[in-house]
Amino acid sequence: MTAVAGAAAVRSGLAPTTGLVAEHPDLRHAGLAPLDALVFGGHDVTSTPLRKRAEQLAAGGVLPGGLPELVAADLDAAEREVRPGVGPAPAVGEAPADAVRRLAADLEGFRGRLGLERVVVVNVSSTEPPLPPRPEHATWAELGAALERGEEALPPSALYACAAFQAGCSFVDFTPSTGARLPALEELAATRGVPWAGSDGKTGETLLKSVLGPMFATRRLAVRAWSGTNLLGGGDGATLADPANAAGKLASKQRVLAGTLGEPVDGEVHIDHVAALGEWKTAWDHVLFEGFLGVGMTLQFTWQGCDSALAAPLVLDLARFTARAHEVGMTGPLGELGFFFKDPVGDGGHGLHEQYLALRGLADRLAAPEAGR
Amino acid sequence: MTAVAGAAAVRSGLAPTTGLVAEHPDLRHAGLAPLDALVFGGHDVTSTPLRKRAEQLAAGGVLPGGLPELVAADLDAAEREVRPGVGPAPAVGEAPADAVRRLAADLEGFRGRLGLERVVVVNVSSTEPPLPPRPEHATWAELGAALERGEEALPPSALYACAAFQAGCSFVDFTPSTGARLPALEELAATRGVPWAGSDGKTGETLLKSVLGPMFATRRLAVRAWSGTNLLGGGDGATLADPANAAGKLASKQRVLAGTLGEPVDGEVHIDHVAALGEWKTAWDHVLFEGFLGVGMTLQFTWQGCDSALAAPLVLDLARFTARAHEVGMTGPLGELGFFFKDPVGDGGHGLHEQYLALRGLADRLAAPEAGR
Amino acid sequence: MTAVAGAAAVRSGLAPTTGLVAEHPDLRHAGLAPLDALVFGGHDVTSTPLRKRAEQLAAGGVLPGGLPELVAADLDAAEREVRPGVGPAPAVGEAPADAVRRLAADLEGFRGRLGLERVVVVNVSSTEPPLPPRPEHATWAELGAALERGEEALPPSALYACAAFQAGCSFVDFTPSTGARLPALEELAATRGVPWAGSDGKTGETLLKSVLGPMFATRRLAVRAWSGTNLLGGGDGATLADPANAAGKLASKQRVLAGTLGEPVDGEVHIDHVAALGEWKTAWDHVLFEGFLGVGMTLQFTWQGCDSALAAPLVLDLARFTARAHEVGMTGPLGELGFFFKDPVGDGGHGLHEQYLALRGLADRLAAPEAGR
Amino acid sequence: MTAVAGAAAVRSGLAPTTGLVAEHPDLRHAGLAPLDALVFGGHDVTSTPLRKRAEQLAAGGVLPGGLPELVAADLDAAEREVRPGVGPAPAVGEAPADAVRRLAADLEGFRGRLGLERVVVVNVSSTEPPLPPRPEHATWAELGAALERGEEALPPSALYACAAFQAGCSFVDFTPSTGARLPALEELAATRGVPWAGSDGKTGETLLKSVLGPMFATRRLAVRAWSGTNLLGGGDGATLADPANAAGKLASKQRVLAGTLGEPVDGEVHIDHVAALGEWKTAWDHVLFEGFLGVGMTLQFTWQGCDSALAAPLVLDLARFTARAHEVGMTGPLGELGFFFKDPVGDGGHGLHEQYLALRGLADRLAAPEAGR
Repeated sequence: MTAVAGAAAVRSGLAPTTGLVAEHPDLRHAGLAPLDALVFGGHDVTSTPLRKRAEQLAAGGVLPGGLPELVAADLDAAEREVRPGVGPAPAVGEAPADAVRRLAADLEGFRGRLGLERVVVVNVSSTEPPLPPRPEHATWAELGAALERGEEALPPSALYACAAFQAGCSFVDFTPSTGARLPALEELAATRGVPWAGSDGKTGETLLKSVLGPMFATRRLAVRAWSGTNLLGGGDGATLADPANAAGKLASKQRVLAGTLGEPVDGEVHIDHVAALGEWKTAWDHVLFEGFLGVGMTLQFTWQGCDSALAAPLVLDLARFTARAHEVGMTGPLGELGFFFKDPVGDGGHGLHEQYLALRGLADRLAAPEAGR
Repeated sequence: MTAVAGAAAVRSGLAPTTGLVAEHPDLRHAGLAPLDALVFGGHDVTSTPLRKRAEQLAAGGVLPGGLPELVAADLDAAEREVRPGVGPAPAVGEAPADAVRRLAADLEGFRGRLGLERVVVVNVSSTEPPLPPRPEHATWAELGAALERGEEALPPSALYACAAFQAGCSFVDFTPSTGARLPALEELAATRGVPWAGSDGKTGETLLKSVLGPMFATRRLAVRAWSGTNLLGGGDGATLADPANAAGKLASKQRVLAGTLGEPVDGEVHIDHVAALGEWKTAWDHVLFEGFLGVGMTLQFTWQGCDSALAAPLVLDLARFTARAHEVGMTGPLGELGFFFKDPVGDGGHGLHEQYLALRGLADRLAAPEAGR
Repeated sequence: MTAVAGAAAVRSGLAPTTGLVAEHPDLRHAGLAPLDALVFGGHDVTSTPLRKRAEQLAAGGVLPGGLPELVAADLDAAEREVRPGVGPAPAVGEAPADAVRRLAADLEGFRGRLGLERVVVVNVSSTEPPLPPRPEHATWAELGAALERGEEALPPSALYACAAFQAGCSFVDFTPSTGARLPALEELAATRGVPWAGSDGKTGETLLKSVLGPMFATRRLAVRAWSGTNLLGGGDGATLADPANAAGKLASKQRVLAGTLGEPVDGEVHIDHVAALGEWKTAWDHVLFEGFLGVGMTLQFTWQGCDSALAAPLVLDLARFTARAHEVGMTGPLGELGFFFKDPVGDGGHGLHEQYLALRGLADRLAAPEAGR
Repeated sequence: MTAVAGAAAVRSGLAPTTGLVAEHPDLRHAGLAPLDALVFGGHDVTSTPLRKRAEQLAAGGVLPGGLPELVAADLDAAEREVRPGVGPAPAVGEAPADAVRRLAADLEGFRGRLGLERVVVVNVSSTEPPLPPRPEHATWAELGAALERGEEALPPSALYACAAFQAGCSFVDFTPSTGARLPALEELAATRGVPWAGSDGKTGETLLKSVLGPMFATRRLAVRAWSGTNLLGGGDGATLADPANAAGKLASKQRVLAGTLGEPVDGEVHIDHVAALGEWKTAWDHVLFEGFLGVGMTLQFTWQGCDSALAAPLVLDLARFTARAHEVGMTGPLGELGFFFKDPVGDGGHGLHEQYLALRGLADRLAAPEAGR
């Protein structure tokens, strides 16, 4: 929503490009589609109209005061392309294979009707509980058969990935949910020749961990405990207040520390739902570390951010980079997009700066795709 | 002091190598002198014996309880090599040129008497006020002549640099003072074929700025104001409570932001002396930034550190890297050591990670000096 | 401004009474004038219309979105009663005594034209530099004569107090400026039989000091240093960025600590102007204290508040309490209103809870004025 | 332990009376026993000698360096009076009634052997899980009979209270455990004519809540959510990492907010065990509140304290106040000691200042016991 309204605002000159990584001078040569070439649609499980949601965001200080009216035409255009999605509970009478077919048909219809060159499916729905492993996840042959038999073998995030790949679309998972991260789905993406990216957009506490972790590591300061508390308002907070849903998010948050510090670190991470925070979130982290001769010291930080304003530009960046990767013929997991994720695919590391260098490398490759192959 | 006691503790196996950057697996191939090859001496303007100072540090929690006794022999050995230094007020009757000759003779005596291969002079004295420019600073011919005429053309930090170069020693400025950063002294270092490094060890607030600044920049989050307050105990705090002395430190602290964010940023930095903090310092920083669509957000951090425990291992690292650079024939300013400094010489940037990559490059070069030339 | 719009909003039922101390169940028996009995006017040195200022506040998130339109009639009514004030630089050709006469005539005109029972003058203008003492400040006879001779013996805040008293109005100083706090003006207030209150509304950092100071004192925890940094946006921040203007504010902030801890405490207080904060302010305080056996510990707090939203209800409270005190015949300094001030008149102490008990005592006295005399 | 060593240090003049509330000038007339009239003994379930524990505390910075040696004689004297206690698991073969008899005999022996006038039993053991209600808790007749029948009807804290009352000793519960808070035990205390106090010493986060809660309430700022995270090292942290044990502590922490704000408040409280913190604890609280016109604002604080140094002086204060209350003939729950507790008996409120006024009232009553009855 903020992505749709924001893209409209930026291309109309109503807002600067702040927060859009793709507009960095280091990266602008990558040949990405310009913002005004983007067209929005989607699958949704709620029925709040985009206009109304925009007004709520403006009241909460996320969108500038008069913006919803100014971009109303863009919101309406996107609204027309919203179709019913799949939720955590399966729709009555719809078998998983049918749901995938329906979603894929929606994607093909969207692409065809509007004459689009390609479509990127970005999962920004609520976090799912971790998926229990099943033998059918190993190959697409087995998984596809299980879906046809009507087995509930996949959560919604993976059904979307499946539909995207079936329709020849690329896929981005902005959440810690399963998405495309199953051997069977990776196989499907490879077969269809589409790229995909994930997982879990890095917008706050973990973004800081990805620069502070390397700082401690290169300075050889020994982190003894890293504790964190996240206060979230809004729907995301309510979802994550359920420990089952939070499990994936918490695991992905801690992985960055182990990845940058070289070993797992003591300390708990809490996610609390504080409804009165609305669109805002606050993270407090306490890092206890030892320096020379074992002297104990601490770093604390408080990050107070607006979740939509942090996530929306990254969604636009990811859509543009992934579309361009698709265009130049890249397929499979895009590890070079780790800069955007808490739990990146591939082995590109968790340090933000090394991830940025990888992103610059990707931009070079996208700029001159022939040279890079 | 903490460096002397700590080096003794580490080489005796009484303490781990925490905080010593040179012991990072990435850097251990550089061929640096091992810790137990180091011999300590110095120039000092106070007369507190090292043993007594060590006991004070142990009482303040900076050195582990029984350490001063365990390393007493090492402290005594260093004590025997301490000579009177030059202070902010010139010694009665000693012309600057004579002071330089005296300091240089001390360095040569130290090297010769103990049979050392080379000596690194590290300036860890109190911060000086900024130096008013003088025409004599332009060339060594003019500056040397001015010193011979008895003109007070140089502050103590620069007299030390001068003496080091005259004695064929390398020089490291761990403070924001003038040190070797005058054309005349750079010329002298080049003539004598010695390397030097600086300025101003990066141990706390600025260390954080050097990773957080690039984070905001690569994410294209627009920093609107960066405000900081530093509470310092101990002698350093008392010195910096004088605005004249603090001026250099404050300038060097803000340079990192302009260097990483690409432009100067609004916001003040305060340094307060809080005597009751003893050896400790606390920095609080408040960063106001804008994200997508101009939404304002904040990051705050509090860093509570022990200044000696943060600085001492860096002093050891710098001495070892600089000595090795001297050994392999490098001369002039060592920009590759910017990782350690608030205000590094050269144009290696202010982002910590890029500085770390430069340091790794230096380690490679030191490991195979022939290849690198 | 926020007070005018807010009073209108509350009396129209558009907003709850949050923040209005006078609406506390403990205090509602005091017989204060109801909010809808209040009529607003004022003296101003700027010419921004109230409607426009209200829109700016709404854009800054201080007033709810649609409020300015809803209370436009109230704003216009107040606007009609705004007259030119006196600024830091005297108006060309207007002698101080003439300025006082002009202001007093405005007040009398306001009271007469609208048929008001009484008028309370509240000073909410920018903080002035401390006033150099003059012999004429001792008695009204001398001061009045000096003003007639054209001497610039009083700053604007005191000219307003003088005019209020001359017109038989009570006076409240919400700033740390001079206001009525000169023997000559106290004498004038007594002669005219009007009450007055001050100084310097307690809306943030100092409010916290007034509860934390007594906590440390009654627990016998020894505060070693209390340091604070205040980041202020808006016009107030710009005024206080000038050290001359800040001097009074800083003194009044520290007085609370000495008053509650029993002795002056080490530590500096900074006020920085951070324009991008707009209507907001952030205070960070660091308290270093010792407990049993001299163990050092710390408390830090960060207060992020909206200055207008914190001050406006107190302005309404003070106007209502002072008007009622005037009505029941109280004269002179109202020490029982210390709850609202950083630097209260009288000797009622600086601890917030004891001040609250005094305020409850005042409410009882105002409820049954005969009994209390 | 810190209480024993600290009392010795203060009475020998080795440490000031910092942290001892009873030494406040407001309270010194209460006729309390002087510190050097106190004699220490105890029941313990571990067998670490006091001397060794003192050395550990000195190494952790809680006791000054040389103190353990200086007060060794006092520690040894207390050590001689330590007897085996009752732990969470009942001793093999010891029926509850026998345990109570054994503990009571120890108390009587201690009092008789050392010729003490009276004994105060203070429970400072680890927090217990909440006690499931049982019908026998209603009267002493039923409870005593159940204990004789060998039923495990009471947790250790209540067995200690029971033994204290049986031996004619007063009792203080410094933990949130059951202690004397059962009708049957209250009846027993009344029958034996002894006073008792509790529960749960207020040493950090909750102490702050007890002054900040009233601040918000009297200013009519509407607290929307109050979230807190507590990082605890040491044994207390390990015990409270078990949710069953933490339940009582968490309930007692939140009660203060409801008690001072007038209604329950949204927000979670976490207690994390961070072993590397040793004797230290850190609490971070985030308060989201609304002011005038519904503007949202925040207060955050970080409290970094040493648990023993905060608790020990309160244990001494409580022992002295309770002994004096016993001496002057007071019996039953001492609500006037609520100043010291998170969850005070009686209805004296949760605001710290009103509790302090009650404590001053108690001091007056203890000073002139005849007058007060």
